[in-house]
Amino acid sequence: MDFTIRTSGPGLYEFTHDVADWVRGRGDGLLTLFVRHTSCSLLIQENADPDMKQDLNAFFQKLGPQADHPSMDYLTHTLEGPDDMPAHIKAALLPVSLSIPVRGGRLALGTWHGIYLFEHRSRPHHRTVAAQFTAS
Amino acid sequence: MDFTIRTSGPGLYEFTHDVADWVRGRGDGLLTLFVRHTSCSLLIQENADPDMKQDLNAFFQKLGPQADHPSMDYLTHTLEGPDDMPAHIKAALLPVSLSIPVRGGRLALGTWHGIYLFEHRSRPHHRTVAAQFTAS
Amino acid sequence: MDFTIRTSGPGLYEFTHDVADWVRGRGDGLLTLFVRHTSCSLLIQENADPDMKQDLNAFFQKLGPQADHPSMDYLTHTLEGPDDMPAHIKAALLPVSLSIPVRGGRLALGTWHGIYLFEHRSRPHHRTVAAQFTAS
Repeated sequence: MDFTIRTSGPGLYEFTHDVADWVRGRGDGLLTLFVRHTSCSLLIQENADPDMKQDLNAFFQKLGPQADHPSMDYLTHTLEGPDDMPAHIKAALLPVSLSIPVRGGRLALGTWHGIYLFEHRSRPHHRTVAAQFTAS
Repeated sequence: MDFTIRTSGPGLYEFTHDVADWVRGRGDGLLTLFVRHTSCSLLIQENADPDMKQDLNAFFQKLGPQADHPSMDYLTHTLEGPDDMPAHIKAALLPVSLSIPVRGGRLALGTWHGIYLFEHRSRPHHRTVAAQFTAS
Repeated sequence: MDFTIRTSGPGLYEFTHDVADWVRGRGDGLLTLFVRHTSCSLLIQENADPDMKQDLNAFFQKLGPQADHPSMDYLTHTLEGPDDMPAHIKAALLPVSLSIPVRGGRLALGTWHGIYLFEHRSRPHHRTVAAQFTAS
C-alpha cells in the first residue's frame, strides 16, 4: 500500500492518523514505511508544538543551505536548481525508512510522537510512501 | 516487550547484553528496536573504547549546541529549557529505530558493535525502548 | 546471507543489482540490510548522476573532517589514524540498517533509487552487509 502526501515547500507534513487507520485491527507485527524519493525524508518527532517543526526545518536549512550560499560553493550537481543537491544531502541525513512495532493493531509510538514526511524541495510535490505490515 | 534504560545526562548508555538475552533461543528473524521518545536516540557503535563515546557525544554537542549558544539564536521552541530543542534536533539526526537480523537466536552484529541509548537531555530520565521480534 | 563489498577509499559503492537478484522470486515481504561495521554506512540515494555522489561525499567530509583538521582538535580517539573517529561520526549520522518493502519479488524502490555502501575510511576494505528477508 502507498500513502500519497502533497507538499508545498520545505517542512514537516504529518500523516500519523492515516498510518494509524491503516494498521488498526491487524494485531501484532511490524510496520515499515519507506519513502520512494531522494529529496524528502520520513521523520518521527514531537507533534505537540508547531514551533518545534519550524526550528527543526531551520536547523536543516542552515546545515545544508541552498547551492547558491557561499558555504556550498563546492557543489557540482546544480543543474536541477539550487535546492536540489541540498535536498539530497538532507535525505541522506534523515530516515528513508521507519520501522514501528504494532501491538494489538496500534502503533507503539511514544506519547508525543507524530509521523512526518519531511519535504526538502521548494516546489510542490506529490510524495509516495510505501507501507508494509509483517505479522509477528 | 519494553526495555527501560536509566540515563543521567547526555551520552551513550549500552544495553547490548539485555537485547542479546531477549533474542536468545528465538531462531532466525528480525529484531526491531524503537525508542518511544523525541529527545533521545538509538545507536549502534563500537563498544571497545570509552574515548569513542566521549568524542561522539562532543561532536553532536557542537553540531547542535544548547539554545543559549550564539549560533542557535534562531530557535523559538525554548520553553522547556536550553537543552530541549537541541535534543529534538539530535533525535532527528540519529536513529529512532534499529533493524537487526537475528540468526540462530543471536544478533548478527559486527565484532565491535554495541547497542546504545543516546541520551540528549541534561536531567535524569527513564527511557523506554520497544522491542519486536518477527520470525523469518 | 551476507553481501561483500570491496572499497578503496571514502565514497559511495552501489550494489543495487546484487540485492535485486537476491530478492527475485520471493513474493511479498520485507528486506533488511545491516552493515556489520562501525566506520561505513548504508545509503539509498539517486543513481543517475555521478556528480551527486561526489557532492554527497564532499558534504560529509566537511561535516566530519579528518582528526588533524583544526575544527576537530577536541577528538581524543585518534590512535587508529586521523580518519578513524570521523568515520565513526559519519557512521552515526548515516544508516546502519535499511528496511525495504518487497512486492512480488521486487524491491519497492523509487525510480531513481540506488542502494549504496558508503565507505568512510581511507584504506581499502572488504565490507560485509547482512541481508534478511521476512515474508509478509
